[in-house]
Amino acid sequence: MSMEIFLHNNRGVLLAYDQGLEHGPTDLDEHNFDPAFIMELAAAGRFNGVVFQKGLAEKYYDRRVPLILKVNGKTSLVKGEPVARQICSVKRASELGAKAIGYTIYAGSAHESIMLEEFGRIQEEAHNLGMAAIAWVYPRGEAIKNDTAPEIVAYAARTGLEVGADAVKIKYTGDVESFKWAVRCAGKAKVFMSGGPKAPTEADFLKQVRGALDAGAAGLAVGRNVWQSPDPLKMARALHRLVIENCSVEEALRS
Amino acid sequence: MSMEIFLHNNRGVLLAYDQGLEHGPTDLDEHNFDPAFIMELAAAGRFNGVVFQKGLAEKYYDRRVPLILKVNGKTSLVKGEPVARQICSVKRASELGAKAIGYTIYAGSAHESIMLEEFGRIQEEAHNLGMAAIAWVYPRGEAIKNDTAPEIVAYAARTGLEVGADAVKIKYTGDVESFKWAVRCAGKAKVFMSGGPKAPTEADFLKQVRGALDAGAAGLAVGRNVWQSPDPLKMARALHRLVIENCSVEEALRS
Amino acid sequence: MSMEIFLHNNRGVLLAYDQGLEHGPTDLDEHNFDPAFIMELAAAGRFNGVVFQKGLAEKYYDRRVPLILKVNGKTSLVKGEPVARQICSVKRASELGAKAIGYTIYAGSAHESIMLEEFGRIQEEAHNLGMAAIAWVYPRGEAIKNDTAPEIVAYAARTGLEVGADAVKIKYTGDVESFKWAVRCAGKAKVFMSGGPKAPTEADFLKQVRGALDAGAAGLAVGRNVWQSPDPLKMARALHRLVIENCSVEEALRS
Amino acid sequence: MSMEIFLHNNRGVLLAYDQGLEHGPTDLDEHNFDPAFIMELAAAGRFNGVVFQKGLAEKYYDRRVPLILKVNGKTSLVKGEPVARQICSVKRASELGAKAIGYTIYAGSAHESIMLEEFGRIQEEAHNLGMAAIAWVYPRGEAIKNDTAPEIVAYAARTGLEVGADAVKIKYTGDVESFKWAVRCAGKAKVFMSGGPKAPTEADFLKQVRGALDAGAAGLAVGRNVWQSPDPLKMARALHRLVIENCSVEEALRS
Amino acid sequence: MSMEIFLHNNRGVLLAYDQGLEHGPTDLDEHNFDPAFIMELAAAGRFNGVVFQKGLAEKYYDRRVPLILKVNGKTSLVKGEPVARQICSVKRASELGAKAIGYTIYAGSAHESIMLEEFGRIQEEAHNLGMAAIAWVYPRGEAIKNDTAPEIVAYAARTGLEVGADAVKIKYTGDVESFKWAVRCAGKAKVFMSGGPKAPTEADFLKQVRGALDAGAAGLAVGRNVWQSPDPLKMARALHRLVIENCSVEEALRS
Repeated sequence: MSMEIFLHNNRGVLLAYDQGLEHGPTDLDEHNFDPAFIMELAAAGRFNGVVFQKGLAEKYYDRRVPLILKVNGKTSLVKGEPVARQICSVKRASELGAKAIGYTIYAGSAHESIMLEEFGRIQEEAHNLGMAAIAWVYPRGEAIKNDTAPEIVAYAARTGLEVGADAVKIKYTGDVESFKWAVRCAGKAKVFMSGGPKAPTEADFLKQVRGALDAGAAGLAVGRNVWQSPDPLKMARALHRLVIENCSVEEALRS
Repeated sequence: MSMEIFLHNNRGVLLAYDQGLEHGPTDLDEHNFDPAFIMELAAAGRFNGVVFQKGLAEKYYDRRVPLILKVNGKTSLVKGEPVARQICSVKRASELGAKAIGYTIYAGSAHESIMLEEFGRIQEEAHNLGMAAIAWVYPRGEAIKNDTAPEIVAYAARTGLEVGADAVKIKYTGDVESFKWAVRCAGKAKVFMSGGPKAPTEADFLKQVRGALDAGAAGLAVGRNVWQSPDPLKMARALHRLVIENCSVEEALRS
Repeated sequence: MSMEIFLHNNRGVLLAYDQGLEHGPTDLDEHNFDPAFIMELAAAGRFNGVVFQKGLAEKYYDRRVPLILKVNGKTSLVKGEPVARQICSVKRASELGAKAIGYTIYAGSAHESIMLEEFGRIQEEAHNLGMAAIAWVYPRGEAIKNDTAPEIVAYAARTGLEVGADAVKIKYTGDVESFKWAVRCAGKAKVFMSGGPKAPTEADFLKQVRGALDAGAAGLAVGRNVWQSPDPLKMARALHRLVIENCSVEEALRS
Repeated sequence: MSMEIFLHNNRGVLLAYDQGLEHGPTDLDEHNFDPAFIMELAAAGRFNGVVFQKGLAEKYYDRRVPLILKVNGKTSLVKGEPVARQICSVKRASELGAKAIGYTIYAGSAHESIMLEEFGRIQEEAHNLGMAAIAWVYPRGEAIKNDTAPEIVAYAARTGLEVGADAVKIKYTGDVESFKWAVRCAGKAKVFMSGGPKAPTEADFLKQVRGALDAGAAGLAVGRNVWQSPDPLKMARALHRLVIENCSVEEALRS
Repeated sequence: MSMEIFLHNNRGVLLAYDQGLEHGPTDLDEHNFDPAFIMELAAAGRFNGVVFQKGLAEKYYDRRVPLILKVNGKTSLVKGEPVARQICSVKRASELGAKAIGYTIYAGSAHESIMLEEFGRIQEEAHNLGMAAIAWVYPRGEAIKNDTAPEIVAYAARTGLEVGADAVKIKYTGDVESFKWAVRCAGKAKVFMSGGPKAPTEADFLKQVRGALDAGAAGLAVGRNVWQSPDPLKMARALHRLVIENCSVEEALRS
């Protein structure tokens, strides 16, 4: 039940690619629409893990990079209080070679209890099969006004710890101090910053990552800021330098 | 878990006949109301597969053409956000000789999560029994304004790929370029154009199919444009020529 | 999985007695309130089957007439979109001696999907235990304006066929021609006319039955028009003559 | 599956004590709050059965009087359409020594179908373990205007019979004639009058019971009219005389 | 199924630390955010039990103090009628060393029936594995105006007893007399006062506890009034003196 396989120097950069289901092709272009392109990028970019839904894992995953199988999901076409239920069994995730399962919990949604219950069951099944359980904790729904407010992000982090996540993926609060509190609230659960939408410049993005690391994060799970980049491998190198080798933003940008 | 059995020259024409449940007898006439007529047509028309609900498969299917058993469904009498749940077990589908199961996902419906979850489970069961899983992905519900808009169709295609469909049945967008994007978004999942309602002329319909093929589709699943035709076998021959032999619309119409 | 046991000359008259749950004692009088009276009537009236809920079967069924165990039901006290869930297991139905299970599907109800799913499962269980599955398909709910409109009745019939019913119980449309279409839409599923509320005269009722038979129905399932009759056995004889011996209404009335 | 163990001279007086959950301590006083007091009363008062929820049975039941384990329940704090789900397994009820399970069905509630389904399953489990199944059938919810109206009480009685209850607990209609109809509608299911809230005088209450017996009831399930009485044992004796020994109200009051 | 392990002199002080999920980090400060700090405090403060969610138990629990594993929970981000479903299996709770499971029932919530049913199942599983079942009974939802009103607290206590809790955690009513009634209504279920939010002074809090003990409570489950205290160990000592050694508030404050 260890996150070790996804870490190098106790840090990790995970390549997220569940946006095809979550956001749809609007996020994709003529290169990155192709999961084979992403699989290559994951390997060539020395990512510590790659995140796929079941369909992509079955048809494209080649085991060169540790797999996190995202076992729930939804389209962005649905309106109303968000809910995403299990769409891949833990057993199948294991058969596909996953070393961890990923699961999104929309904390604050009117359907929160469905997801907390389902994660609780899945986490145990994953641990029984020797896989880690990573929670994407996203406060969302009518009741959530600002999902990057420090107290909301810290609550998300803590929720992950309490319900048994080995790692928690949360949004960045915008500054080191407040994110440090979120990291502390996550306790022994590793914190991965959520990459989020494409930042205006590479430096902007790397500064956020640097902030998260300085606050104690183990790394990040990043998609669009890599594979929407004009030079994804360059971005991958910069992130590797920044996160794994613990460089400054300036050093990372030079790589 | 291969679609091979439904393909010839890597192409396939599937005869859809689940309209009796989905739309009701309003789609049927004195010939095509009879599933035995359809079974004959499937064989004589050299279709690569035939789509039946459980009741029809039990009482009419004679194994001359590979079977796709549609395992969920609903009537069109129900209003509100659409949902169709499993009404045939995967085990029974297999016993009836099916080589694939079909399942409709109403992406964007308030009940989407029910169908994604159910498809997830059914897809695994089908694969475990050596059957392919084909997703009818139909964006529908309050939130969907235009279900043939290019970005919506591409999202449908991608949803099928992400959740593990071996093939996805989607509506045509109306032009080759935009449908090409949908096909690319479906990745290694085969794309079958949805035949849709009877087109004004045969040429109109065949042009759509030609467009889908030119965009990279593996074929189509067609019902009304064949069995509502005054000469269904002639239409079947035209489709065979167009899809399997890769002819032009003009050549196909001459067959 | 045959309906044979319920047929004579390929026709059948089934004695329905699930009204105690569905409508309540308002349908009952000092004779017919008693299930023992009905059991006697079923035998003496040479009915081809008798329909009971589990409670009646357990306490009154004596195996002289083939049993159809109605495995779902609801009271008429509930308002809103109708739903009736399983209240008798298929295994118990079999232990009680049933040769078929009966199940009501409220097509068009907002809860339709619950019943289609449940019927799908129950039909398979029944077949596995050698029992037939009979669907009461009743279009009902906000969306249904007229449940005897020809296209609605034909849709009900077809729904039964598609979901795997061995026989379907539907309302009469009012004329032979339109009911013929419904019967054809039911395909190899046997059609039983629903007896409905007590008709003004015996002749009125028998004419409806004659119409259904002329349209191709296998028979009818009748309750109130028999056991609310001043002479139920006479009515039973008339129906036997009309349905099994294929007499005219006039001949039947003379019996 | 017999009610025999709860009957003497084919009659029974059951001591109901599920009010602690259903109504809360507002029904209780300094004596009757204590389940041990009730257990003593059940034995000393020669009751034919005692009704407990699981928690009371586990901590207070001593097997001197046959146990009816109430396996569903709710608090009265909840508003809206009533629903009470299973809170004790049938297996545990049996382990605790129960000879019957009790289950409340709120007929007419928007959630009726949940309870009918659950009772259907529980009834079979109980029978399989040799226990009787007793239904508390209480028409309730928006749709029910008057739950002691004769046709409503008769419907409740019939519902119990139809769904397989061995005995049904229903409210008194207020007069012998109309209750007689309810009893007849219950058929071979034993009818137990529901004791209801404390009556103004003992005679008032005993007259109701006498009416129920004269109408054919097997007895009653009584709580408050006994254990809220200033002399519960006296009331128990009166009921024993009235019900088991079939005395008049006057004779019973003299006991 | 005994609470004995959590009691000393038939009294117990339980250290509650499920607030991280229930209320979020807003309850936490730079010391008490750390579950390791709490684990130390539980041991050093001679608590009779410690309450953790699964995630904390997996990562921090060291078996020095008996564990109560809280098996359901929710965030405070969700609005509307409260519901908390199971997020830790009873089996896993047992594997983690728990001697009891804790479960919150929001009595009066529109979702009450979900929690009563779930608790019913979990209680049996826990007993089968030799663990006690402790119910946090919190009347809450639209229908509850004042959750410390004496009749509401007594109803909560009684609900715990009726559904089979070995112990019930309830709020203090504010005075000894009314809480005594709640304790009596809980019968053989042990009553633990809920510590609640930080009281203005230590004396204020201890007086409440003293009141609960004088009313017959077995002790309390306390979180914030200990670990938000400037000197948690001092508070722990005071509680030990007050509860276990049965001292007066004044004596306890001197410790």
